Parts: sequence; C-alpha cells; structure tokens
Amino acid sequence: MARGKKIYEGKAKTLYEGPEPGTLIQYFKDDATAFNAEKKAVVDGKGVLNNRLSEFFMEGLNSIGVPNHFIKRLNMREQLIRQCEIVPLEVIVRNFAAGSMSKRLGIEEGTRLPRPIIEFSYKDDDLGDPLVPEEYIIAFGWASQQDMDDIVALALRVNDFMAGVMYGVGIKLIDFKIEIGRVWEGDFMRLIVADEISPDSCRLWDIESGQKLDKDVFRRDLGNLTDAYTEVARRLGVLPTNGPAAANSVIN
Amino acid sequence: MARGKKIYEGKAKTLYEGPEPGTLIQYFKDDATAFNAEKKAVVDGKGVLNNRLSEFFMEGLNSIGVPNHFIKRLNMREQLIRQCEIVPLEVIVRNFAAGSMSKRLGIEEGTRLPRPIIEFSYKDDDLGDPLVPEEYIIAFGWASQQDMDDIVALALRVNDFMAGVMYGVGIKLIDFKIEIGRVWEGDFMRLIVADEISPDSCRLWDIESGQKLDKDVFRRDLGNLTDAYTEVARRLGVLPTNGPAAANSVIN
Repeated sequence: MARGKKIYEGKAKTLYEGPEPGTLIQYFKDDATAFNAEKKAVVDGKGVLNNRLSEFFMEGLNSIGVPNHFIKRLNMREQLIRQCEIVPLEVIVRNFAAGSMSKRLGIEEGTRLPRPIIEFSYKDDDLGDPLVPEEYIIAFGWASQQDMDDIVALALRVNDFMAGVMYGVGIKLIDFKIEIGRVWEGDFMRLIVADEISPDSCRLWDIESGQKLDKDVFRRDLGNLTDAYTEVARRLGVLPTNGPAAANSVIN
Repeated sequence: MARGKKIYEGKAKTLYEGPEPGTLIQYFKDDATAFNAEKKAVVDGKGVLNNRLSEFFMEGLNSIGVPNHFIKRLNMREQLIRQCEIVPLEVIVRNFAAGSMSKRLGIEEGTRLPRPIIEFSYKDDDLGDPLVPEEYIIAFGWASQQDMDDIVALALRVNDFMAGVMYGVGIKLIDFKIEIGRVWEGDFMRLIVADEISPDSCRLWDIESGQKLDKDVFRRDLGNLTDAYTEVARRLGVLPTNGPAAANSVIN
C-alpha cells in the first residue's frame, strides 16, 4: 500500500497520509526515548514488536466493543489506522504505584493502590507533559465534562481487559498510558482509543519474579529492551512465526 | 482445616460451615450435570480443575478490585470463601450468540453480538431457571434497582477482565454465568461475585480452531471433558505442578 506524505513525526512513530480519506499509516520506529527525550537510543526490532503487540491489544479491545483507531496491520512496521483528532491528554491508569506517582508521593514502587487511579497529563513536550486535574481540562476546554466521563469509562474498560490479558500470562499490569482521539460519524462525535498500546506505554512486571518487561528496562538500564518485549510477545503467542527461531527473526 | 456441618449440596459443589463465622468451605465435586440435571455423569478430576481455575480467576478479579467471595484455596478440592446471601439470579453475559440465546432467537452460534448483552435467569430448578426481564426482578423484590445497576457494572467488569484473560491465551470468551451475593460490613451492604468461575460456567472456544473447551463438551458429547478443562488450565499455567506430568497428576 503506497503511503502518502508524512504528516507527523513523533518520538517512536511516524504518521503518513493513508490510502483513503480518514485513514493514516502509522509507522513504528526503533527509536527509544525517555525523560522527555533527554535519553535516546535506537533499539533494533522495537518497532516491529510494538506494531505487532499494539495490533494484538487493539484487536482484542475491538472484540469486546472498546472502540479504537486500529484498522489492520500492513507489514512488519506499519498499520492502517483511523485518522482522529487527538485529545491533548495522556490518560494514565495505575493499579500499583510506580514511576512518577511513587516519586511524587513517596510510595514504594509496586504498592497496590486501593483501586485503579486515573490521572491526566497535558500533552506538551516543552512543558514536560505536566499532570493536570480534571478541573483544568474542562476549564481550558481541552475536553468537556461529558468527554471526561466517556474517557474515564473507556480507560477503565481498557484497564480491566489489559489486566486480564497480562494476568493470564503471568504478568502484572502496573500502569499504562493511552491517548484518546475524536472521530466524527455524521454529526455524531465519538471518542476512541488511539496512539498505541505496547510495552512502551505500559509497565509490566513478571508476577513471580517482579522482572520488568517494559520501557523501564531502557529508562533504568536494566538489560536488553528487545529481549523484554520479545518475552511479552512470546507469552502472548504473537511473534510473527511460531517456533524458537521467531524471537530472532522478529528483530530483523 | 476441619470443616463444619454440611449446609448445602448443589449439583457440582457442596458447602460446609467454615472455621470462622462468616466463612464457608466450598467443596468441588466431580459431578457434571446438564439440562437441569436430566443428563448426569461423574467426570474424574473436574472438581480439582474447577477449584484451581476458580481460584485463579477470583484472585485475578481481586487484583483489579472486583469484590468476590474467594479467600483462599485449602486443598485440591476445597476453598475457603466468604459466606454471603445469594441473590436468586443467574447473571449471564454474552459476547457471541450461543446456547439458549441462539435457540430462542434463531441466531447462529458464534455470531458476534453488537455489544456485550446481560440477561438474568431466576434461580429455581423446579422452574428450569427461567429467563426474566429486569422489571420482574425489581417488582418481585429479588433485587432493587440500585442492586441491579451495581450487578450490571460488576458483570461488565468481570466480562472485560475474563475476555482479556482468555484472549491472551488464544481463547474466545463466548459467554459466562456468575452469581452475586450480599455481604454486610457493619450497616453497609455490598454485592460481591460468588459461586464459581470455571469452564462449567463459561463458554470458551479456541480462537484458531473454534474447538470447545467448556461444559458443552459434556452437554453435546464432544469428547473428554477433563481434557478440555486441562487444556484451559495448561494455557493459563495453573496446573498444580509444572511439566507434562501435571496434566495427569491433576486428575487424581
């Protein structure tokens, strides 16, 4: 499928015009960044793995009626998605304390939270994606109260499903980030899950050992990031081919 | 743990007084029944598998804050649970048409439903657990409107989580049944998931082959029921020990 002109280049993905109006092609790069791009590297095969894993999770969400941008995977690094207007928020759902929440509140990483907690960051690299209360979001018009109710409901459904997917293969879903987009169907505006769901955007700990299988491996120099993501893909049976050779072939 | 006197014997489980007030011991039998007990058999090892699988699912639900009756597994066939007052309903959540819905509406089994559909049967063996509209439930006082709103919310969370658990190991969650119980915490009444979650109470189809891995194997004489349940347990890594011998040892 011929891709059109580049319309946006982010840290880990590039978006191109799609073959039909209302579609885009999302290309997964091997670039890894952390701490608002202060730390950078190229991680061989990461884009291939995230393309495949995001396909798997978005298809699963589709199968239970959680609307999202995914249409189909095109090849090892590209997927066809619905074009949407991104709500300028990072929607973060936490089941256990970790990362910035642990730092801010002095709660030990891995502490079980009383219930899933949803928080929002305003998407702005120059400001370092600051945490914002819902009150700001509505007052500044980034989303309406009705939007926020829908976003919370969507985020909790994604959490319940993804927690299940991970629990079934011995992984604890510590937290994750999603982005939400608006699409119009006639006069009717709908909110859908957009961007990606992958070990770049989730914290995933092995239930038995506590081993990290997500981007913290890169952020904190804990080992080989491709190995960690390959392990997640292997447990879910989503490596491109079956058999032991797959773990290697996937990174080419 | 010494179990107290028998307080209820159902088709697949027996309940005994527990060691402390407010607790019960739930014993999983090998008895399989279908069509309101018109068809009966003893299936070696079924109780052991369902005890283990129900533990696994209930613990998973606990980990995301979906309240349920499970406290801990005691041995191969028994688990300690919270005593609760069972709401006299079977709460059925369907993602795909199958079984009685397919028969009633003439929809082919396996047809994807527009969204998860919840239905209720009034628990009464003499009447054959008849399907009832929510209106009946409230009018006859089996549950209040507030209870029903809570039950629907609980059932949908169980559905999203269980659909994820199964999706991660290549299984489609066609439908399932749960029961709901009331517990009192001081003056505060709470609804929790009770009974069991197992291949006795779910329809589970292999995503690739469509093979049935649930009680329909018994209802419809499709093969060995223990083999089907063992396959579910194996994929989820919940056989009592690891290694190929586990599938045999589990049924003893």
